[in-house]
Amino acid sequence: MTDTATEIAAVRALLAAGERPADLAGRRKRLDGLTARYDMPADVVVKPVDADGVKAEWTLTPDADPKRAILFLHGGGYAAGSIRSHRHMLAQAGREAGTRTLALDYRLAPENPFPAALEDALTGYRFLLAQGFLPENIVLAGESAGGGLAISTLVSLRDAGTPLPACAWCASPWVDLEMSAATMESKAAVDPLIQRPYLQELATAYLHGADPRNPLVSPIHADLKGLPPLLIQVGSDETLLEDAIRLAGVAASADVRTSLQVWPQMIHAWHLFYPQLADGRRSLAEMGAFVRAVLG
Amino acid sequence: MTDTATEIAAVRALLAAGERPADLAGRRKRLDGLTARYDMPADVVVKPVDADGVKAEWTLTPDADPKRAILFLHGGGYAAGSIRSHRHMLAQAGREAGTRTLALDYRLAPENPFPAALEDALTGYRFLLAQGFLPENIVLAGESAGGGLAISTLVSLRDAGTPLPACAWCASPWVDLEMSAATMESKAAVDPLIQRPYLQELATAYLHGADPRNPLVSPIHADLKGLPPLLIQVGSDETLLEDAIRLAGVAASADVRTSLQVWPQMIHAWHLFYPQLADGRRSLAEMGAFVRAVLG
Repeated sequence: MTDTATEIAAVRALLAAGERPADLAGRRKRLDGLTARYDMPADVVVKPVDADGVKAEWTLTPDADPKRAILFLHGGGYAAGSIRSHRHMLAQAGREAGTRTLALDYRLAPENPFPAALEDALTGYRFLLAQGFLPENIVLAGESAGGGLAISTLVSLRDAGTPLPACAWCASPWVDLEMSAATMESKAAVDPLIQRPYLQELATAYLHGADPRNPLVSPIHADLKGLPPLLIQVGSDETLLEDAIRLAGVAASADVRTSLQVWPQMIHAWHLFYPQLADGRRSLAEMGAFVRAVLG
Repeated sequence: MTDTATEIAAVRALLAAGERPADLAGRRKRLDGLTARYDMPADVVVKPVDADGVKAEWTLTPDADPKRAILFLHGGGYAAGSIRSHRHMLAQAGREAGTRTLALDYRLAPENPFPAALEDALTGYRFLLAQGFLPENIVLAGESAGGGLAISTLVSLRDAGTPLPACAWCASPWVDLEMSAATMESKAAVDPLIQRPYLQELATAYLHGADPRNPLVSPIHADLKGLPPLLIQVGSDETLLEDAIRLAGVAASADVRTSLQVWPQMIHAWHLFYPQLADGRRSLAEMGAFVRAVLG
């Protein structure tokens, strides 16, 4: 086996092990636990902060430019995931990009359905502006549901006339809450995490009766005109693969500077496993290069 | 206007000026003439060569690694374009990638329909192997029709069991000879070069009765499994935009390492105008970075 194949097999084994709780509290705990095995590097400073009412957290690495920030929206299907589950990955992202990072603990469904998460993301961005960060020094980022939320946030900011961030980074984005992608079936056998019934359950909880084609929940239906440069990263072993392709197509048609990277053998949200996955580290390094190129 | 807008407006003015000949000889002459205005840098060495019966040409820049080569398939709808029309652009591509470049004067339709061009591309690749170039030091590249031809060449090589090149670069690829892309209409008003009736004429000449869904003429219908890493670059002001998106999707679904870059405001084959277009130079630089990263 290649190094990549060996490494991703180990991650798959990790995911296959242990309980797969069906209840909400169990799922939330499991996602946090999956990454708890990774130690935070000693040079990372972690600072909780109240972002105008939204619980948030800074991570800072020694070489981070204090004027630059990534605002990060974690994954977990709008119903799980947290600052904790994504902390180590985000710290590494900030190191690669040379920025501070601000992780948002946005409100989750089913307790808080759409548009609660979007409202919190907007609050987080405006908090950064109020803190003195210039839009051209801010990167909006998200993974999975957080990737879709990042695009919805950009659309909302544009429509509100708020100055937009410099660029955006979406990892394994979920941008179609109707799950109409052909890869929902064609990649089902190779995706260890994301299957249609699970997404359907999550979508129902988040939508709480809203239209799944609402462009602010499924941004493949949004007009993306005027959005800043966009980096989309996706694994080829994802049922959400076509979500990423379609997002690239919709962005491209709207004249958005778009880079799409497809990583073979990688699974949903593989960046999380970067300590044991060279392609996770490479993906974060590519994101860092993208951010540095855009921010200058 | 931004610099980019000013520059692309000048290119558009250039394209709008002069005759638009409807006959084949006139079209071929026009394409060669469009780029004749650009002087070849003094440090580029140009060497004609016979690639086992296919007319070809080396370009060499001073820092090119003599063990590395880009095999280039020019654009022109399988009916026009030449070594001459693309010489200056290809020389710059080789400079950015740090490789020699071999341009192929593959046979054109209607005189030589499918599969003549494909046969010549395969001959060109095997010529490189016979010259001692290792597959891992070869980049297969093409623009427009040449981009589709590059993918068809990879598929043919794979099916023949021939060792594949290290990676491929497609600029503004034409990969659907049925022209079923929605951008054929949605981008028609902003594309100064490529419209459906023109493509239909070219397709008819190249196909000469062959099925337009044949995977070797429309590689979006090919199984791309096993292909090497692929860089696809496309302008957002192209009717062929969706061809590029769909190629990325098909490659991604087949687990090919795929990078898609969409360049806003850029038009079909904008690299050709790099001397007066910063985004043309940047696109070639990004291609060079991609090649250097893959070749190591």
